[in-house]
Amino acid sequence: MPEIPARRKRATVHDVAVEAGVSRGTVSRVVNGERYVSDEARKAIEAAIVKVGYVPNTAARNLVMQRTQAVAFIVHEPGPLFVEDPNIGEILLGANAALSDADYQMASIVVDSERDTERVARFLRGGFVDGVVMVSARTNDPITRVIEQLELPAAFVGHPPGLTAAWVGIDNVGSARAVTEQLIATGRRRIGMIAAALDRDSGVDRLQGFTDALGDRFDADLVESVPLYSYSAGVDGMRALLARHPDLDGLFAASDAVAAGALETLREAGLRVPEDVGVVGFDDSAWATRTHPPLSTVRQPAAGLGRAAALSVLAQIRGEKPAVDGIMVETSVVWRESA
Amino acid sequence: MPEIPARRKRATVHDVAVEAGVSRGTVSRVVNGERYVSDEARKAIEAAIVKVGYVPNTAARNLVMQRTQAVAFIVHEPGPLFVEDPNIGEILLGANAALSDADYQMASIVVDSERDTERVARFLRGGFVDGVVMVSARTNDPITRVIEQLELPAAFVGHPPGLTAAWVGIDNVGSARAVTEQLIATGRRRIGMIAAALDRDSGVDRLQGFTDALGDRFDADLVESVPLYSYSAGVDGMRALLARHPDLDGLFAASDAVAAGALETLREAGLRVPEDVGVVGFDDSAWATRTHPPLSTVRQPAAGLGRAAALSVLAQIRGEKPAVDGIMVETSVVWRESA
Repeated sequence: MPEIPARRKRATVHDVAVEAGVSRGTVSRVVNGERYVSDEARKAIEAAIVKVGYVPNTAARNLVMQRTQAVAFIVHEPGPLFVEDPNIGEILLGANAALSDADYQMASIVVDSERDTERVARFLRGGFVDGVVMVSARTNDPITRVIEQLELPAAFVGHPPGLTAAWVGIDNVGSARAVTEQLIATGRRRIGMIAAALDRDSGVDRLQGFTDALGDRFDADLVESVPLYSYSAGVDGMRALLARHPDLDGLFAASDAVAAGALETLREAGLRVPEDVGVVGFDDSAWATRTHPPLSTVRQPAAGLGRAAALSVLAQIRGEKPAVDGIMVETSVVWRESA
Repeated sequence: MPEIPARRKRATVHDVAVEAGVSRGTVSRVVNGERYVSDEARKAIEAAIVKVGYVPNTAARNLVMQRTQAVAFIVHEPGPLFVEDPNIGEILLGANAALSDADYQMASIVVDSERDTERVARFLRGGFVDGVVMVSARTNDPITRVIEQLELPAAFVGHPPGLTAAWVGIDNVGSARAVTEQLIATGRRRIGMIAAALDRDSGVDRLQGFTDALGDRFDADLVESVPLYSYSAGVDGMRALLARHPDLDGLFAASDAVAAGALETLREAGLRVPEDVGVVGFDDSAWATRTHPPLSTVRQPAAGLGRAAALSVLAQIRGEKPAVDGIMVETSVVWRESA
């Protein structure tokens, strides 16, 4: 923490100019690192800056430098999910760590409504940030259009169709197929899925992987679609599935939070996990080890995704070209006691 | 969502000036709402702005207006706790809703290290935000000093000693005393406490309330201090208490997250809740209803605290004076099955 002079008001360029006996224009040229200032004037101004405790206005300097040293982390989810989802939290922490290492300030923004969208678009146009990490973009997301049109350095976590910006992601289809195949291998006969967030690539892809794994045995009536990757969506989805198929003996929940809600519903219905119903999730977030029993799930390196996205944005800010095809991060299946 | 012109590069003041056949200075005067521009020039410039799709640079205009329409939400906690703690999440959502209603953009920042502190101080000095909502400030927090010295409109959730800015908070002493008294009334004889975050006013005050409730029966050896309001701190604290006092029959955990960790440890130790040990928490956050059994706890209106803090900042931005003594929000004890 640098020493902060104990004063009540910020010193201005005017105060520095008066102290140094030069014009405000000369002070500005020194502050902005321009040439054509005499050594004598420069020394007088530097001494005056120290004496009056002047801190250059970064917003003003950024107009010259075209830099803010800040990157937005935008999450397009309902507010409560931004708060509840440990997976988003891990992505946030990974991005924050990488940006902090580069001495960039990350500012998180949650987008939850049409009005939020307009305001965030205005914020991005305002030049307050040098780049954006965007999580949970929808197909045809309006924020995505704004980012593309401003040509802001940006990286997306996930890969909405039609996206032209850089992205990092995982193989949702292959991962969902792998965990479903492992569930099938435990001998389950009637496997349902709570599919979530089908307005996003991840949601669609996880359903695709489930469908692929079951092949001829796939039964669309055993799939219940819920809007969000949330605990309460898991409760609702499991209730609906059990009402239609009380004989269900396996479940793929599209995320660990969804699985946690499903476990609660199964418990209330008097069904034992894994004895009566084998349950697998997706994410390996904090939910996975706090449920009873702990979840078999797909581990996705959420912090690594956030970190990779932040590094891509930083590279673009330095003027490097983003990888056209995006960055794919490895996943693995983690087997615990829920299946 | 306003229509966004499909163009590759942002139009500049220069483009507008060329199109309108005037100087860039004249364009700037119109954009910044200054007088002394002929009607003829103004009309030509307004037509040119539409034609070239110019969006005024907010950062530039903010230098004139001294407004950013953005407010920082700063949390001084380890990153993982920012993500894990549903109480902080609720405060964040409450503040975000109030700021959104006023068409202000909230940007969340997590402060987790000395280096973060320096960077955030620079960010605040840079003029990127009009105000700050600050959560989890420590006693003598360096960010607090920066906010005070910049005279930024600010409101604190909680009330660190010596703070001169506006704050909103709850009566932590009285609330902790009330929930402990109710635990005593269930007939418990050896009541321990996992005290957390004693570097903050809330942590110290909750311990004080516990001490007050027990009066002569208070035994300092039954208090275990942990650094954070977190699940894992609850696990550690409970293990330490049980090692010293295996005959303990009651517990006040300084937050619901701490209580959830303690419940897990009690379960592993083969102790039944509430039969063997009665447990009470603090917050009534999402943890409280997802533990088994659900927690008896103190309900603090976290979203309301965030909302009140945001409204205070907005009032200060409008030029109103903050309430000198801060705003105290009511709490209540919620009795469920854990005690």
